[in-house]
Amino acid sequence: MTIQEKLKKLRSEMERHGIDVYIVPDYDFHGSEYIGSYFKTREFITGFTGSAGTAVITFQEALLWTDGRYFIQARQQLEGTEFVLMKSGEKNVPSIAEYIERLEGAVIGFDGRMMPEYEAVRYGYTNPVICDIDLIGDIWEDRPEISHEKVWRFPEKYAGESCAEKISKIRGQMQEENADVLLMTGLDEIAWTLNLRGNDIKYTPVFLAFMIITQHKIHLFADRSIFSKEILNELNRNHICLEDYDSIYAAVTEIKQSRIWLDGTTANHKIMNSVQPDNVILDKFTPAFVYKAEKNQTEIENIKKAHLYDGVAMTKFLYWLKTNVGKIPLTELVLEKKLEEFRCRVKSYIEPSFAPIVAYQEHGAIVHYSATKETDCNIEAKGMVLIDSGAHYMEGTTDVTRTISLGAVTEEMREMYTAVLKGHLKLSAAVFPEGCTGVTLDYIAREALWKKGYNYNHSTGHGVGHVLNVHEGPNAFRYRIMENPGFNPPIRPGMVTSNEPGVYLEGKFGIRIENLILCKKMQKTDCGQFLGLEDLTLIPYDMELIDETALSPEESELLYHYHRMVFSKLAPYLEEDEKIWLKKYIKFS
Amino acid sequence: MTIQEKLKKLRSEMERHGIDVYIVPDYDFHGSEYIGSYFKTREFITGFTGSAGTAVITFQEALLWTDGRYFIQARQQLEGTEFVLMKSGEKNVPSIAEYIERLEGAVIGFDGRMMPEYEAVRYGYTNPVICDIDLIGDIWEDRPEISHEKVWRFPEKYAGESCAEKISKIRGQMQEENADVLLMTGLDEIAWTLNLRGNDIKYTPVFLAFMIITQHKIHLFADRSIFSKEILNELNRNHICLEDYDSIYAAVTEIKQSRIWLDGTTANHKIMNSVQPDNVILDKFTPAFVYKAEKNQTEIENIKKAHLYDGVAMTKFLYWLKTNVGKIPLTELVLEKKLEEFRCRVKSYIEPSFAPIVAYQEHGAIVHYSATKETDCNIEAKGMVLIDSGAHYMEGTTDVTRTISLGAVTEEMREMYTAVLKGHLKLSAAVFPEGCTGVTLDYIAREALWKKGYNYNHSTGHGVGHVLNVHEGPNAFRYRIMENPGFNPPIRPGMVTSNEPGVYLEGKFGIRIENLILCKKMQKTDCGQFLGLEDLTLIPYDMELIDETALSPEESELLYHYHRMVFSKLAPYLEEDEKIWLKKYIKFS
Repeated sequence: MTIQEKLKKLRSEMERHGIDVYIVPDYDFHGSEYIGSYFKTREFITGFTGSAGTAVITFQEALLWTDGRYFIQARQQLEGTEFVLMKSGEKNVPSIAEYIERLEGAVIGFDGRMMPEYEAVRYGYTNPVICDIDLIGDIWEDRPEISHEKVWRFPEKYAGESCAEKISKIRGQMQEENADVLLMTGLDEIAWTLNLRGNDIKYTPVFLAFMIITQHKIHLFADRSIFSKEILNELNRNHICLEDYDSIYAAVTEIKQSRIWLDGTTANHKIMNSVQPDNVILDKFTPAFVYKAEKNQTEIENIKKAHLYDGVAMTKFLYWLKTNVGKIPLTELVLEKKLEEFRCRVKSYIEPSFAPIVAYQEHGAIVHYSATKETDCNIEAKGMVLIDSGAHYMEGTTDVTRTISLGAVTEEMREMYTAVLKGHLKLSAAVFPEGCTGVTLDYIAREALWKKGYNYNHSTGHGVGHVLNVHEGPNAFRYRIMENPGFNPPIRPGMVTSNEPGVYLEGKFGIRIENLILCKKMQKTDCGQFLGLEDLTLIPYDMELIDETALSPEESELLYHYHRMVFSKLAPYLEEDEKIWLKKYIKFS
Repeated sequence: MTIQEKLKKLRSEMERHGIDVYIVPDYDFHGSEYIGSYFKTREFITGFTGSAGTAVITFQEALLWTDGRYFIQARQQLEGTEFVLMKSGEKNVPSIAEYIERLEGAVIGFDGRMMPEYEAVRYGYTNPVICDIDLIGDIWEDRPEISHEKVWRFPEKYAGESCAEKISKIRGQMQEENADVLLMTGLDEIAWTLNLRGNDIKYTPVFLAFMIITQHKIHLFADRSIFSKEILNELNRNHICLEDYDSIYAAVTEIKQSRIWLDGTTANHKIMNSVQPDNVILDKFTPAFVYKAEKNQTEIENIKKAHLYDGVAMTKFLYWLKTNVGKIPLTELVLEKKLEEFRCRVKSYIEPSFAPIVAYQEHGAIVHYSATKETDCNIEAKGMVLIDSGAHYMEGTTDVTRTISLGAVTEEMREMYTAVLKGHLKLSAAVFPEGCTGVTLDYIAREALWKKGYNYNHSTGHGVGHVLNVHEGPNAFRYRIMENPGFNPPIRPGMVTSNEPGVYLEGKFGIRIENLILCKKMQKTDCGQFLGLEDLTLIPYDMELIDETALSPEESELLYHYHRMVFSKLAPYLEEDEKIWLKKYIKFS
């Protein structure tokens, strides 16, 4: 079916149901960022493959909202369709809620299971809503089946804490908040709490489930077939009662006269509607969400190992790339495959932590570019390639971006790379008092770019899960304050956040440099406890792209210090030729 | 009466009214920061004279909450009384609301007129409240009368916009928000809208009034005796109907079936209670509040003149101080008076914009120290004096802090002064995209201090009114995100904000350096409109306190550039000996 045929069918379904505006978000039943193929309704109806964006269809219009990371990609993928791109956050572009508000009296429709409550509330203020429907499901003939992949145990030697300990902490927090019931809907929260992992979403080792915790009982709602006998026994031992995945809505309806703690960012609208009015809802991040962001000592030690393995793999790959470019035929997809090969050599490697980005020259300007057969291009011994990739190892999750010169580069490339690097180096070196948020620290990463009139249309950093979601909250570095105060939390010890400033010049090139950084305690003075950040990523920067004359003495020192650390940690795992190359690459010879 | 006698009387009144907890805030009927003597109930009951703080009295306890600026002063002033200091914002110190919540079922009492609604709501969640009382008024025998000072016209050549134009803009905004009634309660908003000024609050040229605006009518609630015939006629011409100050509550009660726009930070609890339930309340900053923060071109030109006059006065004062210290007897109060003399020479001088701070040596560590006969001390030719002062001129309002060496200073003093200066200089030089808030920019002012383990317990900057409140919202530089999103606004062109980092070492010294800075447009690029900041204050820094070897080339350049500008602007107004001295002072000789 073409997009136009799909729209025609959808509109006839809309007519049948008396719906004027149909909203197709890009979530599963858990508000997940990445979703299984069964849930890709937004992609089905628009053809746009980005990981964020919402389609809105009326009888007159077909619109797609997405954010700055995807403007270029969306424009290209929507070309030739009826869909119009709505650039979220740009001036004069209404939000979906504002757009709907203008259609006074229009009947809004969406699948309540696919819409997280925090988003659904924006649409229900002024208009009537029909949400017990799935119109895309009704017209999608060859829709994939919902995933039922096997669940596996995540050993305590990596998790650092038993399931029982985690549940006890969660219950303590429930008592503090006077919550009778905790309704857990975030897939990573459930996996984290149970020390289990799954495979229902590509790049994200989670499994489809809901969980209800009270002081005396735990109910896990998931397909029985995904658990081994061993895990079923273990759930039993932990007094966790297994129920059907779909029965969550009925179970919520049964809850009476309770204070129910849930998180409207992952609880879907149908769940929220299932809560009976004799209950009180406490809508805020669950204790699991908050605890898992602050990594424990075991997790931190393992994460450091994961970054060592990843650093060795990436550095070997860089050596291979630098020595082979111009000599053998290379394309973006070839590089993607080759990098995966290097990571596969690590014994504890699981899978990529997201769709890798290998973006040559002007492709680098498309923030979340992912090469396809159609866009794949030859890589020559000139210009730059931006490589943003990561992996799940048993020890931890990585996410790293390096922009690499492949031969002759322009002065503009070096100038911009150096400006990006300045912010990147200085953010890692930040010292700040307890209570300081990523909104304040974000300045550091952008200062050098702002002074030149450049900026980047994405956050500087996101939290990273431990063998879970590569993007997790609540920690972040961004300069725009979020409406939900929970999204502007202080950066706390144990939090792992990315540090990834960039520059994107459409049609020319893109530069991004990304490390993961760990928050740790620094000195305690009369003015209180100070915190700092530590680089976890161990991969060299490209000295060919650095204009060293533009670095301040402090910046040069930071660069030298980082490279010294990288070399000393990686050297034991490198071959002699790789070591010699690395020394030269970082100008240590 | 001693504090203990007052507490005894108050408690017997509490008993008579069946009140368990009596709250005494520090506001007038308009949530003003500085208040007339009639309203100083908190000072009456506690003896603490700071401009921020709330007393809470139970039968068992007497508590005073205040913020970091006043910890040292409050501790000293509460000494020997039953009052216990509660340090707001410190760990393990409950907020007043949390404290009250723990007294389950206790009956709370306060004067509803003296409590802004945004504060009152915090106390009414869990406990019964009695608020149609004024227990301090009942026991305060020699209470001063409420002020009835004359109102005066603020000419359009300074205001840049007529009252009629302002009202028309306000009404346009009301239509946008579908508000039938605008209930204006902030004194500075009323003065700004009417282009009138008054004298009911020391240091703040406002007058006691409320105002109700609809699309067709305006009612001004104020004492008739404060207006001249001429102004009464003008009000008449603008169709502004004058009513009794006290009749506002009855007038609000009369409003029917309307959408009422008010601002709960200045609307008091009694006003809010007077709104009948058939109305809808829109509680957010009024259009006047928002408009007046972004100064118009006429205001900006005048403000620059005010800073030139102020710079000349302060620089002449600095010369006088530097040449006389050690030679004639000087005290903090002598300096205060002398500085006022220099400012009085300016033709358009009105009054100080706040209680000046002249704080010698260890007094400088008390953030809002104000010398009294008891604390006044001799100033010798050694150490440092911190002088934070400002003035209202017809052209504009100033607020400036300089920390000045008077002879031998320690290495620690120079090290800390230099660290404070770094942040101060760099904040003024910031470049940032539209939409960036003071929360992000605040980092710049604190970076050098944080790296050394120092911090300061106040915001880096506050908005400054135009011949109105020296502290006005919504613009600010601070790193803590405020709960009310209106308090975290983007810094916009035309906003005037202070830039005043500091360091306070209790028992040793305090350093603060403050300029006012104006936000202005910079370059527009593919990444959008960039903004910058411009120094308005024209007063030299003390080179004796600067360790130039600790400045980066960029910082040295900023310092030199500022001093070059100060010298070229002030020189035409200085005597020959002052000019020669200034050149030497800023090391231009």
